[in-house]
Amino acid sequence: MPLPPYWLRDNCPCGECRDPRNGQKLFQITDLPEDLTIDERTEADGHLAVLWSDGHRSRYPLDWLAQEPSGDGRSEAGKRLWQAADFAAGIPEADWDAYLGDPVEQAAVLGAVLRSGFAVLRGVPPVEGQVLAVARTFGYVRETNYGELFDVRVEADPNNLAFTSAAIAPHSDNPYRDPVPTLQLLHCLDNSAVGGDSGLVDGFRAAAALREEAPEDFAVLTRTLVPFVFRDRGTELRADRPLIGLDALGRIREVRFNNRSIGTLRLPAAELDAFYAAYRRFAAITLRPELQLEFRLGPGDCLIFDNVRLLHARTAFEQNGSRHLQGCYADLDSLASAFAVLNRRIAALDTIAEYFEGEGAAEYLGEAVTMAGHMLQAGALAEAAGAPPHLVAAALLHDVGHFGGTGLDLMEGRDNRHSDAGADWLAQWFGPEVTGPVRLHVAAKRYLCTVEAGYRARLSEASEFTLQVQGGPMTDEQAAAFAALPGAADAVAVRRWDEEAKDADAATPGFGHFRPLLAALMG
Amino acid sequence: MPLPPYWLRDNCPCGECRDPRNGQKLFQITDLPEDLTIDERTEADGHLAVLWSDGHRSRYPLDWLAQEPSGDGRSEAGKRLWQAADFAAGIPEADWDAYLGDPVEQAAVLGAVLRSGFAVLRGVPPVEGQVLAVARTFGYVRETNYGELFDVRVEADPNNLAFTSAAIAPHSDNPYRDPVPTLQLLHCLDNSAVGGDSGLVDGFRAAAALREEAPEDFAVLTRTLVPFVFRDRGTELRADRPLIGLDALGRIREVRFNNRSIGTLRLPAAELDAFYAAYRRFAAITLRPELQLEFRLGPGDCLIFDNVRLLHARTAFEQNGSRHLQGCYADLDSLASAFAVLNRRIAALDTIAEYFEGEGAAEYLGEAVTMAGHMLQAGALAEAAGAPPHLVAAALLHDVGHFGGTGLDLMEGRDNRHSDAGADWLAQWFGPEVTGPVRLHVAAKRYLCTVEAGYRARLSEASEFTLQVQGGPMTDEQAAAFAALPGAADAVAVRRWDEEAKDADAATPGFGHFRPLLAALMG
Repeated sequence: MPLPPYWLRDNCPCGECRDPRNGQKLFQITDLPEDLTIDERTEADGHLAVLWSDGHRSRYPLDWLAQEPSGDGRSEAGKRLWQAADFAAGIPEADWDAYLGDPVEQAAVLGAVLRSGFAVLRGVPPVEGQVLAVARTFGYVRETNYGELFDVRVEADPNNLAFTSAAIAPHSDNPYRDPVPTLQLLHCLDNSAVGGDSGLVDGFRAAAALREEAPEDFAVLTRTLVPFVFRDRGTELRADRPLIGLDALGRIREVRFNNRSIGTLRLPAAELDAFYAAYRRFAAITLRPELQLEFRLGPGDCLIFDNVRLLHARTAFEQNGSRHLQGCYADLDSLASAFAVLNRRIAALDTIAEYFEGEGAAEYLGEAVTMAGHMLQAGALAEAAGAPPHLVAAALLHDVGHFGGTGLDLMEGRDNRHSDAGADWLAQWFGPEVTGPVRLHVAAKRYLCTVEAGYRARLSEASEFTLQVQGGPMTDEQAAAFAALPGAADAVAVRRWDEEAKDADAATPGFGHFRPLLAALMG
Repeated sequence: MPLPPYWLRDNCPCGECRDPRNGQKLFQITDLPEDLTIDERTEADGHLAVLWSDGHRSRYPLDWLAQEPSGDGRSEAGKRLWQAADFAAGIPEADWDAYLGDPVEQAAVLGAVLRSGFAVLRGVPPVEGQVLAVARTFGYVRETNYGELFDVRVEADPNNLAFTSAAIAPHSDNPYRDPVPTLQLLHCLDNSAVGGDSGLVDGFRAAAALREEAPEDFAVLTRTLVPFVFRDRGTELRADRPLIGLDALGRIREVRFNNRSIGTLRLPAAELDAFYAAYRRFAAITLRPELQLEFRLGPGDCLIFDNVRLLHARTAFEQNGSRHLQGCYADLDSLASAFAVLNRRIAALDTIAEYFEGEGAAEYLGEAVTMAGHMLQAGALAEAAGAPPHLVAAALLHDVGHFGGTGLDLMEGRDNRHSDAGADWLAQWFGPEVTGPVRLHVAAKRYLCTVEAGYRARLSEASEFTLQVQGGPMTDEQAAAFAALPGAADAVAVRRWDEEAKDADAATPGFGHFRPLLAALMG
């Protein structure tokens, strides 16, 4: 396997090359010497070890070396191109409460926006400004000259056709902006008008059809810079961009399509003829019935869609009916980030669930209950005591550091430092309000044995044994220092539930009962 | 001159083809018939008249037809590429108060950011959050995972190298975002540390040097999609973009450069070797001393720079010194819009100034003062009365509709409707609080003649004559309707200053005295 030296060295994961706190590289590419070569390479323990000609040593996991290329998912390669019939069984949608409460639902909605370009949330409270709250569940609102949010209803002196009752053909918004907002949200507050239905067209699909049917027209639209313009008293925007934008590999990455705001092209006559022929052909494709996905937004529906891919349309409506949407813009990068983070959290919840159901069903260090039973009891006790969610989670997860097969060390007399290991592991997803009590729950035992008469005598036999391994009761000085820690009270509370949670006969809820609470804390 | 028919028709300016209220096109390109041709074309009165094969008629100003191509100014074609020596006489900078008070100063700063990629405002109050106010003078703040604003100072557990005291080589920010924020602002609150100076490099200039010296390396960097990545507990961003982005015409349009956040490229080995050779060569160019513009930000300085063109750097600083910047992101499109609108306003102020100094120095409809003298007196009377700025402006500009050579009509007995003409013209830059009293100042005369005993008798001879042309005193019903208008009181106030302002001997300030007041009202 050939290993390009600068590439390999640029990816060195050691603590000298990358800041261990944030993973960012600590050297510049120009810091590497000329004629860098690999002096030695050896494979062992699933790693490739490299000795470099400048004396540096690197170590790479073999499975990292073997990883397949992936992409950022933004070009046509990362999308599911569609036509209307593909949604005959229904469009991607979810209930607002389920979306808020369940990371799996939320990931499904965001994944649909990334893959299909849109999704609809149902049951979003039809109150003014709510569309901003929807956007903030996955990203940041992009303010424009239309405001932080805009009202789509008939206006007396509209600065945009959107604010009239006219039909609007499929188009993308704000093409005269660069950077153009990559997401749009439309939240329906009222739609009792006759007409005013919504339509979507997959602009990538339309562009792919043009490429298939008329490759030269497609090429013309990718290389002609079209001036998109918008002007009113306080605004004068212009962006020169092709109708079909390709990435550096020639894949469709962006569609801008809005006849209303195309300004005056200034090109040689033959190029203008060629552009207008291609533009008319592309426009005709976007109007094909099989590409028009039509649906009606009712009060409480919020449509989220990709504004650099999907074209949106509206049928005309009667002015005496009432129709009021509120919209805002946001961006795909934050939505994709939220999607990735949600998937990490879902994977973590699945891993924890597997521990509770697999390894956790094993004997718990000589206690009468299993590990899972002990932790579920601790969580249930915290819940029954009316503890806030972060303490219920800490009680539930306090011994998670025993998982991964290290619990036995402790019983053999070696401190497995399970409180630190658990807290560090949980810190990937939970804040210090959860990880703090986990980290301190062993110290809390040593503290209580010192400051509370009779506490040590109530310890279980196994717990008395591990107390010795963990350092025994605190000195008075240690206890005073512990009590002064900001999370000491929380840690003591968790410790008390820990001690109580060893009842072999207690009926406890399963892990699924706590999953929503954990999901909500992964903020 | 060949006239491509679809191009020409798409640009028809008639009221059927474009919404007169907002200038947006009212037809789709597919609405035009197949085989559209020009049946007749005639030139007269500076216009081209066209009769189309579908019967539509269009009329185009010849000077519109003759316009030269322009661009959006975002590629290298719209920039002034630089090296450090080009700023030996000083960097683009302005005083914050001057920037706020004078559109010419503000346009100079924004123009420098557009053309040279940066400017520094001095004397910006060094208080927390002020950087957001700076951004809002020309656009909208772009929120990111670093917050709406971010603090650049040493942090205990930084998620980014920026928040340490280490030196940082020239780079662009947030390359893992798409859309990437196109502007960055850095506002210095405190910089008493040793070191911590700022550096800028023109990334377009560096890229152009690479193209000149090593065209194949340049080509490699424009076609290699580089995965930029950032990950922490709540974030997982990735954007695959070339280091040097070209527009559809092959011009440099965007530079992304940040070694810290380049993830793992996955390409065939030969391509990785070629990429790393080109990347190292480009990185070395960005470090050339002649490209490093270095300066120090002191408290109250706010640097604004183009984040898709300029690379910014920082020297290391001593941790025991104190250094605190606040930054935020924004976008170039809004800044370019603000620049264009400012230039429109400056041109309008210049035009008004020319009226006052040229045409306005002429006889005023038989009065003893000139038109300019009359209007300046009216403005001065309003100011002396302590009127709010919008009324001073309305008094100053109330007769602006006489300009353009139509005043004579009125004296010949034809109503030139100068109040409407003036208000409509002013509405390009001023809000209704200014244009309203201008529009109603003739009606206010007719109103006062009806409701106020002795008012008519005090009119000047010329004003009595024009009263007749304008419809005479109002009926009682008309007067009641007028009095109920929201702007009636303002119009009456302006009218009284109007009547008073005919003193041939009054000393009045020149137009320049009122210019800042007008500039501030053009919001």
